[in-house]
Amino acid sequence: MSLKTLLFRAISRENKKILNFTPLLVRNHYEDHKNDVRNKFGKTAIVLFGSVLVGSAVKEKLSETDKKEELIEAGIKRTDLPTYRADEVSKHSTKSSFWVTYKHGVYDVTSFLPSHPGGEQILNAGGYSIEPFWNVYGMHKTQEVYRLLESYRIGNLHDEDVLDHSDDELWAKEPFRDDRLLVKTAKPFNAEIPPKEQVQHFDTPNELFYVRQHMPVPELDAKCHKMKIYLKGAKNKEFEFTLKELEKFKTVSIRAALMCAGNRRSEMNKVKPVKGLSWAGGAISNAVWTGVRLRDVLLHCGVDPEDTDGKHVIFTGADMDATGVNFSTSIPLHFAVDPRADIILATKMNGEPLPLDHGYPLRVIVPGAPAVRSVKWLESITISKDESPSHWHQKDYRSFNPTKTWETADFSTAPPVYSLPVTSALCDPLEGDTVAVKEGIVTLKGYAYSGGGAKVLRVDVSTDQGKTWSEAELQSDPAPPRQHYSWTLWSLKVPVQRSVNQMEVWVKATDSNFNTQPERFEDIWNIRGILSNAYHRVKFCLQH
Amino acid sequence: MSLKTLLFRAISRENKKILNFTPLLVRNHYEDHKNDVRNKFGKTAIVLFGSVLVGSAVKEKLSETDKKEELIEAGIKRTDLPTYRADEVSKHSTKSSFWVTYKHGVYDVTSFLPSHPGGEQILNAGGYSIEPFWNVYGMHKTQEVYRLLESYRIGNLHDEDVLDHSDDELWAKEPFRDDRLLVKTAKPFNAEIPPKEQVQHFDTPNELFYVRQHMPVPELDAKCHKMKIYLKGAKNKEFEFTLKELEKFKTVSIRAALMCAGNRRSEMNKVKPVKGLSWAGGAISNAVWTGVRLRDVLLHCGVDPEDTDGKHVIFTGADMDATGVNFSTSIPLHFAVDPRADIILATKMNGEPLPLDHGYPLRVIVPGAPAVRSVKWLESITISKDESPSHWHQKDYRSFNPTKTWETADFSTAPPVYSLPVTSALCDPLEGDTVAVKEGIVTLKGYAYSGGGAKVLRVDVSTDQGKTWSEAELQSDPAPPRQHYSWTLWSLKVPVQRSVNQMEVWVKATDSNFNTQPERFEDIWNIRGILSNAYHRVKFCLQH
Repeated sequence: MSLKTLLFRAISRENKKILNFTPLLVRNHYEDHKNDVRNKFGKTAIVLFGSVLVGSAVKEKLSETDKKEELIEAGIKRTDLPTYRADEVSKHSTKSSFWVTYKHGVYDVTSFLPSHPGGEQILNAGGYSIEPFWNVYGMHKTQEVYRLLESYRIGNLHDEDVLDHSDDELWAKEPFRDDRLLVKTAKPFNAEIPPKEQVQHFDTPNELFYVRQHMPVPELDAKCHKMKIYLKGAKNKEFEFTLKELEKFKTVSIRAALMCAGNRRSEMNKVKPVKGLSWAGGAISNAVWTGVRLRDVLLHCGVDPEDTDGKHVIFTGADMDATGVNFSTSIPLHFAVDPRADIILATKMNGEPLPLDHGYPLRVIVPGAPAVRSVKWLESITISKDESPSHWHQKDYRSFNPTKTWETADFSTAPPVYSLPVTSALCDPLEGDTVAVKEGIVTLKGYAYSGGGAKVLRVDVSTDQGKTWSEAELQSDPAPPRQHYSWTLWSLKVPVQRSVNQMEVWVKATDSNFNTQPERFEDIWNIRGILSNAYHRVKFCLQH
Repeated sequence: MSLKTLLFRAISRENKKILNFTPLLVRNHYEDHKNDVRNKFGKTAIVLFGSVLVGSAVKEKLSETDKKEELIEAGIKRTDLPTYRADEVSKHSTKSSFWVTYKHGVYDVTSFLPSHPGGEQILNAGGYSIEPFWNVYGMHKTQEVYRLLESYRIGNLHDEDVLDHSDDELWAKEPFRDDRLLVKTAKPFNAEIPPKEQVQHFDTPNELFYVRQHMPVPELDAKCHKMKIYLKGAKNKEFEFTLKELEKFKTVSIRAALMCAGNRRSEMNKVKPVKGLSWAGGAISNAVWTGVRLRDVLLHCGVDPEDTDGKHVIFTGADMDATGVNFSTSIPLHFAVDPRADIILATKMNGEPLPLDHGYPLRVIVPGAPAVRSVKWLESITISKDESPSHWHQKDYRSFNPTKTWETADFSTAPPVYSLPVTSALCDPLEGDTVAVKEGIVTLKGYAYSGGGAKVLRVDVSTDQGKTWSEAELQSDPAPPRQHYSWTLWSLKVPVQRSVNQMEVWVKATDSNFNTQPERFEDIWNIRGILSNAYHRVKFCLQH
């Protein structure tokens, strides 16, 4: 284990939550000074030094927050409001009158129902506490949501009816994570790979691979894990495979990037707020996945690869929400049996068993599709005439035009996102960096990617706001276009004159279908902030 | 045959060349008044009426041209210049001194060589007349090129050495064409389908399908036509198939649009001039193609579908240039044996034998690729470790960024275009039309298309310069996304207020990889004007 990892483990044990929102700041200080400290005082000093940095960084951060707006705590007792008993609250669980509780607070959120980003999921909490749900859907635990919730406050819950919904047990078995990950939410755990690490490795080290969880990480035993296959319809059949039994199929390895459909959402959010995790460009990583072909397994079970019309393959994971519903999503059967779609049931990631955070012991890899389709902790596969009925499939990862609002968007007719458009990002330097110019040259590094098997053929970079474009050097996987699932890393050496102290870089990629990125986010804006692939524009300073 | 066709045949026999650049004008007059004339005077009158219209339209057109610039005739004898004998001219055939003749003119074009859009093809004409070449590459026969040529004039060719390079014979066997086609160049014949016809038929009638020729149409006999297959490399084998023998393979029908890579070039040309036929949006049409799978034929000949790395399939047509070189281009073998790429050797188009203009009796259809890869009048298929060495493959249909010029563009490293990006167009109404508003509604109609098997999932239309977007109604082929090769027709009813007298429409499509069109042409501009897929923007007037 590296010194750095040791240091951050030590620090984070104490300050985990606080660290989560200051890592970049801390890390910059740390990177700048660690060698000086190490040389002078040795390893122990490094740990202490790290702690001091965290302390001061946290202090800075908190005083920044203070300046902006007072922190709000939801659900504290208020003397100006009436008190309700739990049985009274429980009567308000219909769309015409919908109350919830949070700690000591009682809220009438009837008028909020149509605006809930999670759709009708909220109905599960009617007349009851929302805490068990928020323990699973931890993205609610933000100042913005607390503030919104309190705006619907109508009273206090009677002291005797306030239950302890502590979430300790739910999250007790979360795996150890590398502290270099940039945490967006802790529960569920969602974290980016630091941009400068992205471009250091063509295949991302497992511990740095970005993590996207919807729920707590389930604990599965590889030795007794069984995956079921259900064929619905005329031939109603059921199959079951242990991991040992799956090994009888031909082993294949596929190099593929996984990217969240919401990668780069934070840039779209600047145009007009969207709902979703505020990913920067770190929700993509690349790996070699090893397993067996889904096609081979399905054909073994008697699935007819020529009879795919209107059929779907539903993947169900072992991760479960507060109501006991397992995570699930689906893809068209047509893709699943395509010999060139390279969809596999994977047990290994970069030659190692899948890490707990990446689906141990078995996950699907649907290369070229949004990572949500690559279901982790795979428990079952269902061939059905319907798409997955789950919330995650029906109410998310669908595409809308910029004019659609939460009120007008119709998820039932919007196309599910099964592929990803061409995108790119500059990863080094980052926005706001100060870069040392070496012999009149600044080196730019980043990634580019396109879904559906398309290969990135060109990355164009402009440092004069689009007047001229230079082609970057590309590092690609040798897989052929149309069956190319890996990302592409790029670099470009840009000559700069001594008089120039600032640089604005625009990056755009062109893929093997000769699609390019749109210029701006305005016309691709959508309520969920997905498919956020306009030019990447980054400003930084130069030091000669 | 329709009255209209009869009329235009009659007219065009006399005025073919002139008609070619006035058809829309004439047709608009004709459409407006033909019913009145027919009712009053009968069929003969219609023909006469048509002739009168053409006469006046031509007169209008010529006087327009007069106003702009004096017509130039290249190669006429000039008394102010010296006279050269043919043997003197023939000595100047190297890059250091390069002369050509045209009729009575002698030209030193040495300094022009690097700028020749057709690359080194020009070297074939060194020290000799360029007329035989221009007879094949008829796009040279424009005022612009004549003017350029005369700027290099150094003398006169001796009377005794001036040969008759009349092109009558070369073009004597061109097929009959429907006069509704909008002719861009007559020799070789290149013509668009009129936009308003595009959206009238999901499968374009054969006679209206746009035509893109590089050379004169060859005359082949289906009964004795043989297609050869050459396997180059370790196993140097040769096969031969008559059409009858090809019929032994399984017959399949594929619905696919063919689009020229230069479709919509005229819009890109407005940003900055590009080289190539000035196509509007009419270089795309849709049809059902019937034939046998290329994959089946190749596998029958022993091609290994797993051993495709670095290999190519070269298609050679029977059409031939002035130097006796057949048209040829290639695609990667990896695509050719992909069972889902749906590449076929077609003998039928919309249920009829292939028309002469579309490759009779045998052509390749490479759906989702630029139409140039769908080689017509197919004579041979070669499996090779090299791409086609032909000029058309090596020096055209490659992609460059906007900064590359004819001087800096390196064709040998630029990726060949094997797929097409998402595009769309408004076909009715057209730019400058005056549209009658019916019950407060204007109906917009157009097409959208994406290459590589992607399906168009959404067409968004804005009538307020991008502030809001409305989704059009789509008419699609039921083929699944990723294997969807047809175009999509779209329509949208737009409510307009009485006070509004002008409308500017923006159209953009989103495909099943969720790629969208770039906003403007500036950043996708390229020297050849291909892949011209920015938003389509059209202005027209409204009549209430």
